[in-house]
Amino acid sequence: MFDDKNPLTPLSELGEFGLIDHLTKHIKIKRKSTKLGVGDDAAILNYENEDVLVSTDLLAEGIHFNLGYMPLKHLGYKAVVVNLSDIYAMNAEATQFTVSLALSSRFPVEAVEELYSGMLLAAKNYNVDLIGGDTTSSKSGLIISITALGKAKSDDIVKRSGAKPNDLLVVSGDLGGAYMGLQVLERENEVFKVNPNAQPDLEPYSYIVERQLKPEARKDIPQILKKLEVKPTAMIDISDGLSSEIIHLCKNSKTGMNLFEEKLPLDPAVITVCEEFNLDSTTVLLNGGEDYELLFTIDQKDYNKIKGNPNLTVIGHVTDANEGIHLITRGGEKIELIARGWNNIKEEEE
Amino acid sequence: MFDDKNPLTPLSELGEFGLIDHLTKHIKIKRKSTKLGVGDDAAILNYENEDVLVSTDLLAEGIHFNLGYMPLKHLGYKAVVVNLSDIYAMNAEATQFTVSLALSSRFPVEAVEELYSGMLLAAKNYNVDLIGGDTTSSKSGLIISITALGKAKSDDIVKRSGAKPNDLLVVSGDLGGAYMGLQVLERENEVFKVNPNAQPDLEPYSYIVERQLKPEARKDIPQILKKLEVKPTAMIDISDGLSSEIIHLCKNSKTGMNLFEEKLPLDPAVITVCEEFNLDSTTVLLNGGEDYELLFTIDQKDYNKIKGNPNLTVIGHVTDANEGIHLITRGGEKIELIARGWNNIKEEEE
Repeated sequence: MFDDKNPLTPLSELGEFGLIDHLTKHIKIKRKSTKLGVGDDAAILNYENEDVLVSTDLLAEGIHFNLGYMPLKHLGYKAVVVNLSDIYAMNAEATQFTVSLALSSRFPVEAVEELYSGMLLAAKNYNVDLIGGDTTSSKSGLIISITALGKAKSDDIVKRSGAKPNDLLVVSGDLGGAYMGLQVLERENEVFKVNPNAQPDLEPYSYIVERQLKPEARKDIPQILKKLEVKPTAMIDISDGLSSEIIHLCKNSKTGMNLFEEKLPLDPAVITVCEEFNLDSTTVLLNGGEDYELLFTIDQKDYNKIKGNPNLTVIGHVTDANEGIHLITRGGEKIELIARGWNNIKEEEE
Repeated sequence: MFDDKNPLTPLSELGEFGLIDHLTKHIKIKRKSTKLGVGDDAAILNYENEDVLVSTDLLAEGIHFNLGYMPLKHLGYKAVVVNLSDIYAMNAEATQFTVSLALSSRFPVEAVEELYSGMLLAAKNYNVDLIGGDTTSSKSGLIISITALGKAKSDDIVKRSGAKPNDLLVVSGDLGGAYMGLQVLERENEVFKVNPNAQPDLEPYSYIVERQLKPEARKDIPQILKKLEVKPTAMIDISDGLSSEIIHLCKNSKTGMNLFEEKLPLDPAVITVCEEFNLDSTTVLLNGGEDYELLFTIDQKDYNKIKGNPNLTVIGHVTDANEGIHLITRGGEKIELIARGWNNIKEEEE
């Protein structure tokens, strides 16, 4: 991971306060709503009467990421992005985040710098401020806890609970790539364990590997929707998998849903790799998580506004709750959707 | 910890979403500024143009707490309280918090319920809303990450950076208790390891043990100061130890400080236990952390307003930066203060 020519700096050399100073001294505040960032007991913000959105996520080594194939800079970037995604999923603008790290002494200062460089790159790309945090030791492994803040006019905010029968279900981008990227990385990691000199050729998999290692949140979607003058009736981001998110959305809105297999947006790269791994692409798309696309419902009268937009695909429609939540297959079969979650796809395939 | 008569529920039985639903379903929102709490991609808040304070802390098992003598309910309570303390340290009002947990599968559902019951008790006692969070598995141990939010009128907020020469240094309550409580608990834990049937008698130590296990944040101090019409020039909370916090305050304010040993507020129980453990009470008070009292500076003209208030003690005065940061001992000796931190007191004593 690091160049062996230069000696690495143990965390103990800087100490907790020294480390925080070292990592945060170059941070520049960009947002008007940030009045004071890192360096006091609390950050000071002001949103001028707009609503404030707050979301929090925790990533644990060995559960959410594997440093065997996840470079620390990418990990830092991804940890921020997945939190910002929750703010965009409220149809809001992300503005700030805090980050808390617990790390074991096996991480040198240079490793934490790498992690921070990824987080600060995300801050730059998404125009959000890093306003505070905590860094501490852990008995084992790395834990990253991030809280994202955002703002929106009260009337613009979209919850999970507003979908109503006959609304259309829309998704941004394409799905399944992050999961298949993970499959490729895990396969290469196994090869590496057996033969550390193996040079993996990830080039043919660059799209899906990037979807896994450096996902982007759909900052653009709330902006596009605003421009199109479409306010979704309900919205959620896709972190755990399409099935699971549809079920959340229906549960919160007290509705059912019909989802059409033939409409599901798959990138050709995902189809190819699914064939290579002998996985059914619809199963991957429904249950593979971490795509961080936005899933939302719109009133039918707004259909013409979004029709033909390359970022958006209509994939289903909302029904009464008592009709249940179903996938309509290409063959016309009606299958009840269940939230399987991405950890269990392989078990089902076996 | 738990009654063995009833079988415990493994976390896997509820799953992540089931667990969060289970833990949060009875939460009632109390704050006007909370428009939507747990249950969507993000919480929705509105502070009506007041400033928003945000602070975050992470507690790791084996580093910040030991479940051998820290009951989970107390741990949940303390984890919330130490975060709220950072908001009060801005002279602000705490209003909400989020909580993220990473826990290994050795914790049953009942353990997480205990932890949550402590957090919800803190929410009740401090009149703050639990508005969101994340619960995930970890490869080992328990990690608690909390982000606290608060509000204040812009003009009321007190930073660490406003102290000026001749200001008085004031502290709330008394110091050193939490550290000595920890010493007692660690001693009993060692006895327990040797003889699991030993019944510890903690009664004589109840004050200091409670300071360690169930600390309270000084929610009352910003209110008292408001009533007294005193706005501190700088403020910080005492989490790491008085020495360390004084140094932070001076560094941020670009000043020096004279601290008077004879003024330092010690509870008689702390003095007694220091003698029992053969520790110097001034050393304990300077370096023992986790008291969560507030430390602040006031203009001399405000002295008469706080004089005689049983919650407040003047312990020093601010000097020019080039005079340095010193303790003036009872014998009139001038000793430079260094931030030793509470992990190192014993080493120094040995």
